[in-house]
Amino acid sequence: MDIKRLNSGVCIDNFRAAGVREGKYGVAIVVNDKICETVGVFTGNNIKAAPVLLSMKNIKNGFQAIVANSGNANACTVKGMENARRMCDIAGRELGINSENIGVASTGIIGRELDMLRIEKLIKRAVQNLSKKRSKNAAEAIMTTDTRTKEISLEYKGIKIGGICKGSGMIAPNLATMLCFLTTNADLSKDTLQKELKDVVDNSFNMLIIDGDMSTNDTVILMSNRNKKCRLQDFRYILNYACIKFARMMATDGEGVTKFMEIEVKNAKTEKDARDGARAIASSPLVKTAIHGENPNWGRIIAALGSKVKFDFEKTDMVFESGVKRAVAVKNGKGMNLDSVRKILNNREIKIIIDIKSGKYGARAFGCDLSQEYIRINSEYN
Amino acid sequence: MDIKRLNSGVCIDNFRAAGVREGKYGVAIVVNDKICETVGVFTGNNIKAAPVLLSMKNIKNGFQAIVANSGNANACTVKGMENARRMCDIAGRELGINSENIGVASTGIIGRELDMLRIEKLIKRAVQNLSKKRSKNAAEAIMTTDTRTKEISLEYKGIKIGGICKGSGMIAPNLATMLCFLTTNADLSKDTLQKELKDVVDNSFNMLIIDGDMSTNDTVILMSNRNKKCRLQDFRYILNYACIKFARMMATDGEGVTKFMEIEVKNAKTEKDARDGARAIASSPLVKTAIHGENPNWGRIIAALGSKVKFDFEKTDMVFESGVKRAVAVKNGKGMNLDSVRKILNNREIKIIIDIKSGKYGARAFGCDLSQEYIRINSEYN
Repeated sequence: MDIKRLNSGVCIDNFRAAGVREGKYGVAIVVNDKICETVGVFTGNNIKAAPVLLSMKNIKNGFQAIVANSGNANACTVKGMENARRMCDIAGRELGINSENIGVASTGIIGRELDMLRIEKLIKRAVQNLSKKRSKNAAEAIMTTDTRTKEISLEYKGIKIGGICKGSGMIAPNLATMLCFLTTNADLSKDTLQKELKDVVDNSFNMLIIDGDMSTNDTVILMSNRNKKCRLQDFRYILNYACIKFARMMATDGEGVTKFMEIEVKNAKTEKDARDGARAIASSPLVKTAIHGENPNWGRIIAALGSKVKFDFEKTDMVFESGVKRAVAVKNGKGMNLDSVRKILNNREIKIIIDIKSGKYGARAFGCDLSQEYIRINSEYN
Repeated sequence: MDIKRLNSGVCIDNFRAAGVREGKYGVAIVVNDKICETVGVFTGNNIKAAPVLLSMKNIKNGFQAIVANSGNANACTVKGMENARRMCDIAGRELGINSENIGVASTGIIGRELDMLRIEKLIKRAVQNLSKKRSKNAAEAIMTTDTRTKEISLEYKGIKIGGICKGSGMIAPNLATMLCFLTTNADLSKDTLQKELKDVVDNSFNMLIIDGDMSTNDTVILMSNRNKKCRLQDFRYILNYACIKFARMMATDGEGVTKFMEIEVKNAKTEKDARDGARAIASSPLVKTAIHGENPNWGRIIAALGSKVKFDFEKTDMVFESGVKRAVAVKNGKGMNLDSVRKILNNREIKIIIDIKSGKYGARAFGCDLSQEYIRINSEYN
């Protein structure tokens, strides 16, 4: 029995959603009939936007709704907290929900005050549009420079996971913000949900590198209606599947991205080595530009790994894969003929596996190439 | 009394040098009449090229000469150590010096065996060309994608410092290698020289960020003939001046670079905060592309700093400078009118000062913008 796809996006069971846009601004709402068990993972940046601080504070009450806007990050502003509160108040009033049971998130430019007149109008319009069929509109409303909406809706052994998200590290008009709102029916305690979300985020979104920058606004929220009794391991399986899927969607939709890359470090001495190593490779501008140019330059990969991890190059294997195709670049520290590696690099999705044979820990990172288009978008933005 | 410029490059006092090129390969030699007090700082990458390992081993004997090649990093190869030894043996034989008193360094592509026939020929030619007038040839011979030779020759209170270097983080044809060979007459003990070099490298080359990658081959060697008695503080002053000068030269000569940036973090709580913060800003692709586009996007700078350092944005000031011009972007956490900041960003050399008013520690990082040209060079290289 495997994972089934549903068509509801974030609107599994009794969740509803809406999304509206006007100019650079968009507003999305996700809502349930009752207060949900709610957990979250927020940016590790020491400078946190006001909506992040407010959601971190209110999440302990459980959320019945989330209100999110694109177009302005509401970060590093004078009226930040006041306006984040007002977003919750307006949404609460329109929805008939206590504003302390509403999560809030923002994405867009830093350092400018929110246009609250416009936000208020958009929240009202969104509330009027709420429906079980509007997940896609909600996903659209939080997009910044994303080129595609990102939704999932999955079921496994009766456990459902729905979600919408927008790009991380894709350098939204102003900054690399990831927003991800997940819904589930899994009847698990808050502590369990929190632990599982944290672990899964560590292996998915936290291993996703577009450009290595960390936003002031990154937010992942998971709301559960607790309708379905389930086994922890089954929930973990589907949640992990969902978040990895979102991470891949974000990597392939990165700004200026022409290639998706998955980096797997195998048999490292410690988990930290495996994670740091995979991230270092996925973060390296030299590796990213080499992949962009379809250049089988494995020396850059070894150097990036070596910048973080102690290992014996003499024992190291490196394999390139794309779909069912596979080519060995390095075997026991010896460079191989690279013609077949070059052919793999012609593809859009590339996996690079580095086996350092030092221990038993592995990790995967998700990333993309670095192109001239990335520079154009991020230097010309005004 | 201030620092005087000399015209001798690395060839202060009785040092001689030579450099020759053939195709992609170049060989440089620096030599003295006797064995010098010698100290070095080598790459922190866990994967170290064979010449680095050999120089680290032999440096305790003191060097009378250094032999260096460009065109091939002699890293991650099967015959790496054998060929690094042979380079010293050949140079030793031609110079009449014990090969254990010769330092060796390489820069270029990783994973290919050195062409020892060519290296031998070039070493012989270089030895024939040795002269007090050939510092510039030596500087040319170690260039990879550097566009300018980098030499210094300075005197302060009778203490002389000479040097040649090649670009760090400029992504040499294959990898971001920095080589720097320094000569001095300062009569200081080996332990003192080592400590001073380490400290100065920490504040200059280690605060220089072109693309954040760390090479397998980075090498800084300092040779002293101990001809001149001097005060430690005077030596420290001139050595620091020399290395900061080299760091600036490297940043402005980075691949595809159109702007040099100096980032100063002031009044941090700890030295680590100041250093990590300055480095994080200089490393951020979002900051680098904003500077490239002359875009006064201070939010990206705050976010990059916040990714590493705890501070209160509400207390923070940010100032942009170029030459004598100065513009305030943020004052006590409040964004200012950015017209004058935009004018500063038109310039080629930009200094950004962030005062976080949390303590008494400061640090400077040196970097550059990120341009489409960088991507072109590094993705198209073959």
